[in-house]
Order: sequence, then structure tokens, then C-alpha cells
Amino acid sequence: MKTVRGIFAPIATAFDASGEVDYATFAENVEAFGKTKLAGLVVLGSNGEFTLLSHDEKVKLVETARKHLPKDKMIIAGTGCESLKETVQLTKECAEKGADVALVVTPNYYKKDMNEAALEKFYTMLADASPIPVMIYNMPGNSGVNVPSSLTVKLSAHPNITGIKDSGGNIVQISEVLARAPKNFSVFAGSGSYLLATLVLGGVGGTLAVANVVPDYCVEIQESFERGDLEKARKMQLALLPLNAAVTSRFAIGGMKAAMDMVGFKGGLPRLPILPASEETKKEISRILKELGIPTV
Amino acid sequence: MKTVRGIFAPIATAFDASGEVDYATFAENVEAFGKTKLAGLVVLGSNGEFTLLSHDEKVKLVETARKHLPKDKMIIAGTGCESLKETVQLTKECAEKGADVALVVTPNYYKKDMNEAALEKFYTMLADASPIPVMIYNMPGNSGVNVPSSLTVKLSAHPNITGIKDSGGNIVQISEVLARAPKNFSVFAGSGSYLLATLVLGGVGGTLAVANVVPDYCVEIQESFERGDLEKARKMQLALLPLNAAVTSRFAIGGMKAAMDMVGFKGGLPRLPILPASEETKKEISRILKELGIPTV
Amino acid sequence: MKTVRGIFAPIATAFDASGEVDYATFAENVEAFGKTKLAGLVVLGSNGEFTLLSHDEKVKLVETARKHLPKDKMIIAGTGCESLKETVQLTKECAEKGADVALVVTPNYYKKDMNEAALEKFYTMLADASPIPVMIYNMPGNSGVNVPSSLTVKLSAHPNITGIKDSGGNIVQISEVLARAPKNFSVFAGSGSYLLATLVLGGVGGTLAVANVVPDYCVEIQESFERGDLEKARKMQLALLPLNAAVTSRFAIGGMKAAMDMVGFKGGLPRLPILPASEETKKEISRILKELGIPTV
Amino acid sequence: MKTVRGIFAPIATAFDASGEVDYATFAENVEAFGKTKLAGLVVLGSNGEFTLLSHDEKVKLVETARKHLPKDKMIIAGTGCESLKETVQLTKECAEKGADVALVVTPNYYKKDMNEAALEKFYTMLADASPIPVMIYNMPGNSGVNVPSSLTVKLSAHPNITGIKDSGGNIVQISEVLARAPKNFSVFAGSGSYLLATLVLGGVGGTLAVANVVPDYCVEIQESFERGDLEKARKMQLALLPLNAAVTSRFAIGGMKAAMDMVGFKGGLPRLPILPASEETKKEISRILKELGIPTV
Repeated sequence: MKTVRGIFAPIATAFDASGEVDYATFAENVEAFGKTKLAGLVVLGSNGEFTLLSHDEKVKLVETARKHLPKDKMIIAGTGCESLKETVQLTKECAEKGADVALVVTPNYYKKDMNEAALEKFYTMLADASPIPVMIYNMPGNSGVNVPSSLTVKLSAHPNITGIKDSGGNIVQISEVLARAPKNFSVFAGSGSYLLATLVLGGVGGTLAVANVVPDYCVEIQESFERGDLEKARKMQLALLPLNAAVTSRFAIGGMKAAMDMVGFKGGLPRLPILPASEETKKEISRILKELGIPTV
Repeated sequence: MKTVRGIFAPIATAFDASGEVDYATFAENVEAFGKTKLAGLVVLGSNGEFTLLSHDEKVKLVETARKHLPKDKMIIAGTGCESLKETVQLTKECAEKGADVALVVTPNYYKKDMNEAALEKFYTMLADASPIPVMIYNMPGNSGVNVPSSLTVKLSAHPNITGIKDSGGNIVQISEVLARAPKNFSVFAGSGSYLLATLVLGGVGGTLAVANVVPDYCVEIQESFERGDLEKARKMQLALLPLNAAVTSRFAIGGMKAAMDMVGFKGGLPRLPILPASEETKKEISRILKELGIPTV
Repeated sequence: MKTVRGIFAPIATAFDASGEVDYATFAENVEAFGKTKLAGLVVLGSNGEFTLLSHDEKVKLVETARKHLPKDKMIIAGTGCESLKETVQLTKECAEKGADVALVVTPNYYKKDMNEAALEKFYTMLADASPIPVMIYNMPGNSGVNVPSSLTVKLSAHPNITGIKDSGGNIVQISEVLARAPKNFSVFAGSGSYLLATLVLGGVGGTLAVANVVPDYCVEIQESFERGDLEKARKMQLALLPLNAAVTSRFAIGGMKAAMDMVGFKGGLPRLPILPASEETKKEISRILKELGIPTV
Repeated sequence: MKTVRGIFAPIATAFDASGEVDYATFAENVEAFGKTKLAGLVVLGSNGEFTLLSHDEKVKLVETARKHLPKDKMIIAGTGCESLKETVQLTKECAEKGADVALVVTPNYYKKDMNEAALEKFYTMLADASPIPVMIYNMPGNSGVNVPSSLTVKLSAHPNITGIKDSGGNIVQISEVLARAPKNFSVFAGSGSYLLATLVLGGVGGTLAVANVVPDYCVEIQESFERGDLEKARKMQLALLPLNAAVTSRFAIGGMKAAMDMVGFKGGLPRLPILPASEETKKEISRILKELGIPTV
């Protein structure tokens, strides 16, 4: 099993003015990202508005991405659904269309039922059934469910569970996994704001909303760190914080898509009920990009 | 527009041993509830495991319910999805199959994007498009999103938004809606634990998990209150608390389905990843039913 | 042991311009409240800024209140401190100065240590040592610690624990206590926003910030309810919500003191670090008072 | 102004069997810590049970510590109280008794009143009045109040505010302060679980409960990092996690004092209402110490 490592962008899904998926524009973005130093793309991630997509749209997006992304770049597909049944089915179809890894968020509507036993069973049965390696996706900010480090460590022993993307931002929880999981279990930062902290403690990559905007900048943080230039990595990490906040905690999907537009990718409109960024928000993002020295179009 | 009022059970969805929807057993439950004093059923509610169902399963369940429920009892369908597009589509199909009202939970995965403006637009556009009245479903315990009273009051002015089922349990928020919404806007308790408090302040009904277990008991609380017997209503309300907690906060869906089995309805297995109640949980529920004087089978 | 019942104002503490306690102005307020229909006063409550007062100031405030309040009105003293030792000491001194009951908030800085066993021991040892009855003060909004209903019910069996003031606003938790505690255990609403709901379920009074502003209005809610005029009680309860929110959740202590000034009591300045209400806040409170039909000075 | 840097233990306060402060045993601990590589001690920290101490006990503990600690080691005194007035007074007295720096927690009982304006005024007026430098103490786990990075950055411009101890564990917030505060503003990790992450991003020290148990181990993490041995620092950091959790999140003050006893310091009993560790807890802590290779007595 190939180790998953490096920086991935959770690529945005493009929609046309009527709210339909715009596969052509999406393909343009895939090709543009193909020319960056990214290790690959996450299709159907949280920033891909995956919960707003139908089953068929999801599969077609993976297929499209695989067609337009160079073969040496990996495709991770976000195949988590609320039911195990649908998750298995979607994972299989995405694998057929070329996904290398399935990134699977915790089921989360039934929070009280999603205790450790239920989550363990879910991931174990899924990994048993999946033709491709499974990566746990811990995203408490959206899901309201946290995968405790004890469970992650237990699941890391499964031969078909290859890593975790932890978007909770709790560096202690991330550290606990790194302290106890097998060495080849890939731990990813789920946000650009704690990428360096994760790498320092033993993480090997990140899936970062902000990599939809400044992919090579993000890769350079990891490269600087890995060649021993901690000082450069630290400076780049600290300088990235305002942009990272703008496209996540502050202005969310609408803000991220606006920022993509500004730097030459195709963000476009979110799907309803998500609203596009306001003009005021766009001005603030533009200011932040300028401060970071990123040219805008 | 007919006012929505009275006690509704958010009917459980029956599954067979392989995890497929068991429409026949579901129909048996519908018929059994048809013989109670319930005002109607909520099909595809949280207790119906709606997020674990496919679009087609959802529509067929509404169709089945309508066929098997006496015409004088109302069907409310839980048609909320993450995207506006899918919500509108599902609402239309459920209306065609006989749903009287659509109960629509807040989209919730993109919590940071679900600000008041986004939620207002979502419900307004949905209500504009829906052939049947829309009821807001506030369910912060599962969704992590709260509909503030200010927004509910604003939405209550829409001619096709007929009420709210508030499962947040915040009696002050419920009171604020009752103080300011039009008189014919139906405010429902979302749990049996604060049914009487809601009624006293002006609410007109409830959609209660516990009504899947003791439907007529719940109706009797409302009837006692409405005919002026506050003391009886109070005693019944207080006595109901342990059972209500058992089938909601304590043992969730697994517990509720086990309790249904014990009193003669068909609860059966939840769909994975939700786990069935343990033997220990069943013993505790059985004890609680006995304490309340409910005969078990 | 006399049952504690009725409406109490958690009287504000007056400070002079230099931040010292102004006992004379405080006494004026006590005398003014003495002419209302209130059952008594809580001295050293949360609205009395008790955590900002020294031990000696606390004792002197109780002494002052007792001197200036008619004998038929009760004095409840807020004697909770972080350590058991200081709580016992302060309770004894306040009792000597005339306090009838001690209202004791949960110790709360060491939240992780304040498990059920620690809280049970704290209240039991305190009640054993106290010369006056103890009332549990559950105030999770300020303390971050909640007293679960199971513990309250256990403590309600202690002969020197006479009731609970629950400011958590969770009507289900309040109901659970009312369902299982002895009949003479006094359950108080901790805020004017759920006074009627608490009374309907069996509560016997309230300690309400808003009673510092409209004491007789609050008493009238309880009187209407108790003489069977539920409709009047309901209308008054709903109409009170905006003012109640203004002096609690919206504008806190600063807002409450400003509102007291407006209706003829002496609110004055809070003690630092609490800031007084802004001019904008005062305008909003004035508007709300007018809407409720309360004359301002 | 001397820069505050290095590892500090928030020394425990010793109590005798009757619950009185045991200054002699406390002095023994001070002397024992004086022989370690610690940069100094925090007296009256959260782990010193400061909220359970009287004003006079606090001052005497600082005086005792200063007498028994070598002159080259710094004393930081926890002088935060709920009122500004008492905080200023205590800070002055502790300074007189030899405290080098005042570590001041946010006032926190009146959470709704503790907005950014109130906190800014509090720290500014305190720093203006204090004869010694002030260090902000952000401790949301105990206080329920968070100091946002924007406010810390603003306060870092005050000539008498020297740094922050951030015990919130949010590495992004810590990073934001490091990105924008002056270079000589000392940022400390507030827990041993994210010490290395804080140092990597530019922090210069830590005040760590676990340094009450393994002081030199903690110092060695910082020394390894600062001499460029990131790999050793990383390994020691990861290995420390279970012990750190045991004396903080898992078993709190009771656990920390038990662990101190096991390694030869004098933990002893907490003051009520804090309970001592159970026998089961002690066994677990002993197991964890053994796993880390720490000899126990």
C-alpha cells in the first residue's frame, strides 16, 4: 500500500448559474492544480460541498478529476455518507472511476448513537469492504462528532485503514495518534493553520482548504520543514494564518471560492443554501492576499 | 390552510435483517398507530432514521404511510436535505404521494455558512416552491444549528410556513416565538419532556419520540391540559420523564426501537452505523416501562 | 423549617464613584424593595456582584439589608465561595447578621475536580455545619458547572438543604427535580424567562434579576397562576421576555443596573472589571421598558 | 525588563490534615524544585489551588517561596482575582514579598460582562498600577473565558505586559499571537502536551502542571529543541503525553498531587471541595510513570 503523504487541495466543485454542476469548469481547475506541486486532490471533500451533491454527481466528479489530473498525482475521494450501506456503495464506485483512497467522514446526524462502538464498527466494516484504502476524516467543526485518539489508534491496526485527516485542530489529539499509531499510518493536518505543528510531531501531509488558493505556498512549508529549514517553515506558517482563517473559520465556503477566483482558479458560486461571499468579504480577502504577497487577477 | 395541532409520532422505519427497508412491517406500525388517538404521523423524522435512507426509499415510505393511515390523520413528511435543490424535489414528490405538511430540518453540515441570511433564504425559497405547507424543524442536538427565535418569527409571516417543531428544549426560545408569531403559527414541542411547558405557553402540539411507545399517554397530557385539568397533566408529564429520557438522550434510536418492541409495536433493528440496544439497556427500559405502569409484551 | 417560596430580587450592590461599596444607597434600595410585594431579597447573589466583594463587605451588606428590610420579608444570603472552609465561615457570619437562608453556588474554578462526588460532599458538609438552611444554587451560565437532577434529588433528602435555585434554564432538569424531590423542597426559577413554566411544573418561586426592575410585575405572574388565572399569567410571562433578556443574556449586570436607574431604584455603576451600560444599550432598554408599559423616571 | 523564558512548575500548595496551609512542607517542595533545572516557580497558579486560598495565605506563600528558592530562579505569582481592586492590591503585596512577575487570569464569573472591552480595560489598568510585569493567563478550561489573539496582540504593546501563558491548547490562537506580538513578548505553553508545538512556532517556555512531577524531563524537551535536536524533543514530547493527561485532563489536581507524592515531592491532600485521588487512580498514575521510566518512591 502506497503511503499517502504531501499536500492535497480539497478541490471546490464548480456550479453554473442555475446551480448545476459545471464539469467543464471543474476540469479546468483540475488541470490547473495538475501543474502545481500538490501531491494530489481530494474530490468530494468538505470544501467540495459534497453533502450538497447527488450520488451520481459525486461519481462523475471523481471520474472527471481522474481524467484531467496527471497520473502521478493521487485522487482521494470523499465517500462518507450517513449510512454504512451508501458509503460502501459510493466507495466502490469511486474506486472504479480511479480514486486511490477514500476519505470518510464520521456519520454524524445521529450524534448520540455515534459512540465509540458504532464508529469502530462503521470504519471496520467499511475498510473490510472497500477496494481502496480508507482514511478517517475527523471533522468535528462540521460534524459535531470527534474521533478520540484511542479509537484512531485502534483503527490504525486495520490493514486497509491508511491514515487520518484531522480537522479538529486539537494538536494534543493529533500528537496522541502520532505517539501510538504504526509508523506508516498517515496523519494529515486538516487545516493550513496547524500544518507545521502537525509535521513537527510526525505528520506527513495535509488536506488544506487554503491549498485551493495558494497550493505551492503550502507545499513549500512542508518542503522547507523536511529539508531542515525550520525557520523558513515557521515564517511561512505564521504568515499564512490570516488567509487560512479567511477561507475557513471567517468566511467559509463562500470566502474560499471568492479567493480562488481572485488568484486565477475558478471558484464561482456555491450551491444553495450556501451563499456567495459579499462584496465586503471579497475586499477583506483581497487585502489579505495582498498582505501575503499573492498576485491577484 | 388547516392548522397543524395535536400529538404526532415520528414513526420508526423498519429494516429487515439485511438492512433493507421492510415496508410491510412499517405498514403494520402505521396501521397500529392509526388506531391510537394520535393526530397523525411524521414519516422521515429523525426517529425514522431519515438521513440513512435513499431518496427512493423516502418517497416510498411516505406513499406506504398514506395508504395505511386513516384519512382523518395527517401525514407530515421529513423532507429536509442538505441542498435546497434536493429538498424542493423531495418535498414535491412526498406531496404527490400524500404528505400534508413538510417538516424541514435546517441544512447543517456547513454550520459556518448556515447563518441567519442563508437559513432565511433556504426556507423562503423552499416555501415558495412547495405545494404543501412547510414546518421548520429546529433540531440543534442533531444538527448543531439553532434557528433563533428572531428568524422563526420573521419566517412565520410567510403564507406557506405553518409552524415550527422545536427540539432544542430551550423553553425561553419557544416562548419568544409564541410571544411574537401569528396566532395560527403552530408551535410544537419536539420532545415529550417539555410538552406541557410548551402547551402552557401557547403551543398546540408535539412530535415526540416517546409517542412511538406510549401514543395515547402523550395525547392524554394534551387533552388533560386543554380541558383545564392542569394537575393531571402535570402528574402525567412528570411521570413520563424517565421513559422519555430513555428513548432520546440516554439510549437514542436503539433504545426507542427496543421500547417499541416491548409494548407491541415493531421497532426492530436500526440501520448501520446505528447499533441496536444492548441487553443491559433493554432491561433498564423494561424497568422504566414497568414503573410507569405500561404493560409489556 | 419555614418553606422558602415567592419572588425574590437578587438585589444589586451599590458602589460609589471610587468603586467602594455604598451602603447608604444600598439601604435605600432595600427599603424601596421592602415596600413591594416581594417575598424577600437575595443579598450577595450573582446580580449583587458577590465575587467582586471582600468577605467583610459581604457580611456588612447582609447586616445592612436585615436592618432595613421589614421583618416579614426573608433574607437569602449568597454565601458560596470556592473553598468549603470559607463557605462555612461566611455562612455562619451571615446567619449571625440575620440571613434566613444561604444560597450556595457550586464551587467552579476547578471544573474537572467538581464531579458529582465532590459536589455531594461539599453540600453535605456545608449543610451539616450551617446554622441556617442551605439552598443549592445551580448557575451553569456563570459557573460552567451543572448540578445534575440526580444529585439535587439526592441532596434534597438532607434535612438542612431546603431547595434549589436553578438558573440553567433547562426546564427538563427542573422537571426531573420536581418529579422526585420531597414535596417541601423548594424549586425556584433562576430567571424571569421561565418563571411560569417552573411554577406550572411545581416550582414555588423565583429569584429573578428582572425583579430588581419590575418586582411587583413578577409577583403578579405567580399570583395570577396560583389563583388559577393561567391566561393572565401566560400573557404577562410572554410580555416580560424582552426586558428579562435585556437585563440578563443581552446586557448583563451593566444593563440591569441601568434599568434599575430608569425605574427609580438605584442601580449605579458596577465594580470593575464590569463596565456600565453604553448609551446605546440604555436607549434599547428604555425602549423595551416603554413597550412593556413601565413608567421610567 | 528581563525576558521571562524557560520551564516553570506551578507549584502545589501543601495542606495539613485539618485543611490548613502547611508552609513547612511547601518550603520543602520549593527547595527541592530549587535543585532542578527549572527556570522558576509559579506560586498561586491553578495547580496551587489559588482560588481556595485567602488573601493572607496567598501573600505568605509567595513570601515563603522567595525565601526558599535560589535567587537565580524567578518567582511568578498568580495574583488574578475577580475584581480589579483586589487584583491590584494582591499584586502589590506579592511584589513586595519578592514576586518577579504577576500571572493574572481573566476575571471569569461574569462571563457575559467579560467582553473584549472589559478585559482590555482590566489588564491595562492593572499593568498601569503594577510594580512588576504582568503576564496574561488564558485558562478557558477553568475560566470559561478565552482571550482572543486580537486582544493579546493589542495588550502586548503595553510596556508592563510581558507575555501570556495560554492554557487553552489552541495552537492556532497561540500561533496568531506569535505572528503579531513584539519579539520580546513571551508566549508560554500552558500545558506539557503542546510544549514542543509552542516552541517550534516561537514560544519561549511553559508553565506545566507536569513539571511538578518531572521538572527536568520538561526542561530537556526545551533544551533539545533549542540546540537543534528536534528528533529527541519530538520523542520526549510524544512520550510525555500520558503522564501529562493524567495530571491534568484525566485526574486533575487530585491526580497531580498523587503523582508528586510518587516521585518524591510532597503533594499531599487537596483542600476541600477538591478530593484526593482514589486508589484506582493512583494505580493508573503509577503505571504511567513506570511506562515513562520515572522511578517512584
